[in-house]
Formats: sequence, C-alpha cells, structure tokens
Amino acid sequence: MIIAVDAMGGDQGLLATVKGSIEAIKELGVNIILIGNEEKIKNEILKNNYCGSDIEIINAEEVITNDEEPAMAIRRKKKSSMVIGLNLVKEGSADAFVSSGSTGALLAGGLFIVKRIKGIDRAALAIPYPTKRGVSLLLDAGANTDCKAKYLQQFAIMGSIYTEKILNIGNPKVSLINIGTEEGKGNELSKEAYLLLRSSNINFVGNIEARDIPEGVADVLVCDGFVGNIILKLTEGLAMSIFSMLKDEFMSSIKSKIGALLLKSGFKKFKKRLDYTEYGGAPLLGTRGVVIKAHGSSDAKAIKNAIKQAKVFVENKVIEKIEDEISSLGGNHDTEERF
Amino acid sequence: MIIAVDAMGGDQGLLATVKGSIEAIKELGVNIILIGNEEKIKNEILKNNYCGSDIEIINAEEVITNDEEPAMAIRRKKKSSMVIGLNLVKEGSADAFVSSGSTGALLAGGLFIVKRIKGIDRAALAIPYPTKRGVSLLLDAGANTDCKAKYLQQFAIMGSIYTEKILNIGNPKVSLINIGTEEGKGNELSKEAYLLLRSSNINFVGNIEARDIPEGVADVLVCDGFVGNIILKLTEGLAMSIFSMLKDEFMSSIKSKIGALLLKSGFKKFKKRLDYTEYGGAPLLGTRGVVIKAHGSSDAKAIKNAIKQAKVFVENKVIEKIEDEISSLGGNHDTEERF
Repeated sequence: MIIAVDAMGGDQGLLATVKGSIEAIKELGVNIILIGNEEKIKNEILKNNYCGSDIEIINAEEVITNDEEPAMAIRRKKKSSMVIGLNLVKEGSADAFVSSGSTGALLAGGLFIVKRIKGIDRAALAIPYPTKRGVSLLLDAGANTDCKAKYLQQFAIMGSIYTEKILNIGNPKVSLINIGTEEGKGNELSKEAYLLLRSSNINFVGNIEARDIPEGVADVLVCDGFVGNIILKLTEGLAMSIFSMLKDEFMSSIKSKIGALLLKSGFKKFKKRLDYTEYGGAPLLGTRGVVIKAHGSSDAKAIKNAIKQAKVFVENKVIEKIEDEISSLGGNHDTEERF
Repeated sequence: MIIAVDAMGGDQGLLATVKGSIEAIKELGVNIILIGNEEKIKNEILKNNYCGSDIEIINAEEVITNDEEPAMAIRRKKKSSMVIGLNLVKEGSADAFVSSGSTGALLAGGLFIVKRIKGIDRAALAIPYPTKRGVSLLLDAGANTDCKAKYLQQFAIMGSIYTEKILNIGNPKVSLINIGTEEGKGNELSKEAYLLLRSSNINFVGNIEARDIPEGVADVLVCDGFVGNIILKLTEGLAMSIFSMLKDEFMSSIKSKIGALLLKSGFKKFKKRLDYTEYGGAPLLGTRGVVIKAHGSSDAKAIKNAIKQAKVFVENKVIEKIEDEISSLGGNHDTEERF
C-alpha cells in the first residue's frame, strides 16, 4: 500500500513528518511518498539513519500556509505539496494522502481535486472527540457552515460506517446534536434532520444535548459544520482556561502548591485523556479517495498514527461501503460544485 | 418599587423564594408580591419570623412544571403563579417579575403576555457567562432557534445597553460568535449579521471564535439561540465531566489523595468562579416589562440577587433605552406573533 504524506505541513514540519513516515514503514509495512522540498527531506531521512527503499520523494516547489485563503491557494499553487498529494490520490498513484497542513486548504482540495463520492452532496471533516468513556466521532467539524437536512443524514451514515470499520465500535450509536432531547426540539434544520436520521439504516438513538457530549453516550455526533466547529473550539478553550484558572488557585498558598505538586502526574494523565491528537487524525468523509487531516501540532507518533489510520481506512474499503449505502438511499442530489 | 416573585418555581421552591424575598425587602427596600399557594407561603413567612407589611400574597391555584410544553402551559394555566406574575407586569401592578420556574414557559409567557418592545422582532434570553476575567453576557441563550441577521443586531444592541447599565461595564465590547475571526467567515447568518453589527451604534469588536469565549475578551457575546444554548450546555457538561475525570485521577493513589485534600479549598473557590448562578439571573431582553429568569437551582441568596437585578433594571430604565435605540434604527419589522 502506498501512502502519500505532505512532508511540509504541521507545526513541527519535516521533523515530525519524516520521522513519523519512517516509523510507519517499519511498523506497518507501507510504502511512503514524501512530498515537499526534496533536499530537506533527504537530509531529514539521513538524520534518521534510514536507508531502506520504501520511501519515494516527490519534490514540491510550493507550500500552502495556514494564512492563505484555502480555495484560492489550491487553485493557484499547483506545485504545492498538498495539491501534488491530492492529485496522487485522484490518479490512483497513492492509496491515501495524509497532511498536517491547513485544514481549510485540505478540505477545499479534497473536494476540488479528489472530488465527492457519487450521491454525496457534501464531504465532512470528522474529528475524534475525547469523552469520559473514550472517544466519539464528531462531524461535520467545520467543512460545511450551512447545511441541509439531507447533508446531515449523509454525515450520519458516513460517520456510522467509519466508526464501525475504523474505530471498531459495533453498531455505533448515532446522535443528532440538538438543544433538547425530545423529537420536535431544535431549529428547522435539526427537526428535519431528526426525521431523516430516524428513517436511515443506522443505529439512531435520538437527539443529544451538548451537556451530555463529554459523557460519551453517543459514538457518532452529527451536526452542521458551524455548530461542530463551535463545539470543538469551545472544548479546546474551556479545557485551557480551566487549567489556567486552576493553576491560579493552586499557586495561591504554600499548602495548595504542595497539593498541586502531589497531583502533577494525575494532571498529566488527565491532560492526555483530553488531548484529541492522541486519538488519531481527522478523516475527510465523502471524497472519492482517502484523505486524512493530521493535527497541526502532530509529532512523529501522531503522523505515524495518521498513516496507520489511512491504511486501515483503505483496507476496510470504507469508501466503497459509503458508496453502497448512499446509492441505496436514492433521491436527488445537489450537482452544484462548490468551487 | 414592587417586584412580583414566582414563589413556586425552582428546585428549592418556597424555601428559597420566600427567604430570598424577605432578605431583599430588608436589604433593598423593595415591596414584594409573592405568588403561589397562599397557605404554604404564609407558613414559610412565619418560619422566617417575618412580620412586616412589605409582602403581599396572591394565591395561585396552579403551577407550571418543567415537563410541560411551554406555550401550551402558558395558554392553559391561567391561574398559575407564572401567568399571574406576568400579568401583573403587563398591567403595571408590578414593576418586574422574577421566576426560577420553567425557562421555556417564562420565555413563551414573556412574549405572549408581556409582549415585545415596538421594533423588536424577537426577545432574547441573556445569560451571564463566567470567564477568566469575570463575566460576559451571552445572548440569545435559547429563546430563538432560527434567527435572521437583524434579530442578532437587535440582540447586540439590547445586550450592549444591559451590560452598560446593569453590569456597569462602560462602552462594552460586543462580539459576534463565529468560526473565524476575519470578516467574511462563517455561515450565511453570521456573514450578514457581521455587516449589520458593524454599522450599529455599539462598540462592535468583530467576530470571536468559541476558543476565546472563556478568556473573557468580549463583554457581550451575540449568537442565535441554537448556538447559544449549545455553548451554555457544553460549558456545563464539560466543567462537570472535567471535575469528575480529575476526581478519578486524584483518587487513584494515596499521594494524589493527599494532594487533592490540600487543594480542596482551591477547588471550591474555582467551582464558585465557574458557577453562573453566582452572577445573577438571566434577563429576558426585548419584552415591554422586566422579566428575570433566576436559575432553577437558586437558593435564597440567588433569589435575592435576582430581585436586586430586577430593581436595577427598572431604576436604570433599560427598556426605555432599548426603545430609543431601536426606534432610531428604523426599518421594517416582523409583525408575526409567535403564538
């Protein structure tokens, strides 16, 4: 299996992407195509003392940064590592593409280059969301700000298949994020989506209030990309501010300082539980090829895990299963392209 | 000044509402009308050894519970403490109404009985949201699930006036909750609302991402009621689950147990900072009379604080100021009533 890796993405750049790729080769037996500045990649490979033949390098003259307007960057930077990687997947020269670069650009490129599965109106970004019981899959986490009910239905079906095949959760419980648990609650979108989800071939367990999301009662959490992004960012911000507020309290006396010292390892373990980079990358669901967004702060281990995730994604034929399930739905689909 | 209090609402019922009302009389010099089961109220007043003449009791034969469909309950239970209280405000027999009963019913009743200020299309529930720096006002927190951009503009103006007059924050910074900070980010609603807010007579400081909400960088946080309710409930759920997960870690060894013991008071102080009942009740903004929703778990102190808030609300002529500001906006308004 050949996995293409965007060598230039992420906060740690080549340091993480090259090392992670080498670890993946050793552990998973995959072939890797590293895309980016050829010389720098070669240097980094040497530093890692790797001299095997399972890495191919494709030189990329450009890099898409986080500051660029995503769709524009994809259109203009044809020689960027991201556009080259997505084209490899489109042409079938690679089985999957992993990038820790700009989320927006990867989404835009996924749709523009790899394109959507027939019958899928919108592709969604699916994020593993850490909970008390483990992890739930949240989608859409920000790809589609304005959604129709049928998009949410498609997200639910794709999320259910992914959770079953990749996260190994049998008959995953699918919930619709809403502001009340009863049927008939919510806004126009969620009311309509509720009815569609209920009639779908998934284990739909009803609405979930945001209060219950951290409890982990649902395996798949469905919402539009605006709400999904708010949930993701608020979780990040709250965790950070709660830690910093606790720190303030704990530094206020000698007694509490000693207490905090005794709890240091407990805090560390806890932070790890909340850290969603621990739970792998975020797949783009609904595109005709496998595209995985690794977290921007990915280290080598996170990159290796994202490559592993891509491998399992391909092996389990998730895209084919989505195609089958969606084609059985029938109905009219939006033909409008977003770019 | 006469404040009507729903004696029957809240988890603690008469215990909190009667005691809180008596404390308010002593501390604030207001007159109170307690509405509910007359005999029970009288008993509770006796228990509190209050024999002054500043409490009037109005008997109510019915109570609206949290389980009832709000609009239906308001329509049918004409003899409930909530409907009687709202009618007192409408008729001008009371200057304000405070209830810790069903939020939905109070919203429905506020609109149906007290009615909206001329020029206001939708009334919003405004919640004090605890942050690292103090408190921000979040609106709409759940009254309106589907909003137009002009509703958000009205929420922003009302929130700004309330924050300045009641929370004593000069020239409050108003932010639009969005999934990116730049202009042009977000869904159709937020893009349109951005332009309206920018042209309004408020201190609009732009979009705020959910990640930055807990930092307290904005004084007024504007969003539709669906998103607002998600934010509120997720905050509650995350705080609870973070505490329970920390507790698990801390109970895992003797060392960490001792540490947790030493930090007990720090944790307590911290929990208090996060507890939004500490920051007073939630005003209904946009109705022709003053209606305050006290938290369902209100104790006597919280009820007293909500009464105080109602008093300041009336004294500062917030409603008149909203009327002035909105009438200067001009434009067409929805005439459709929601009931």
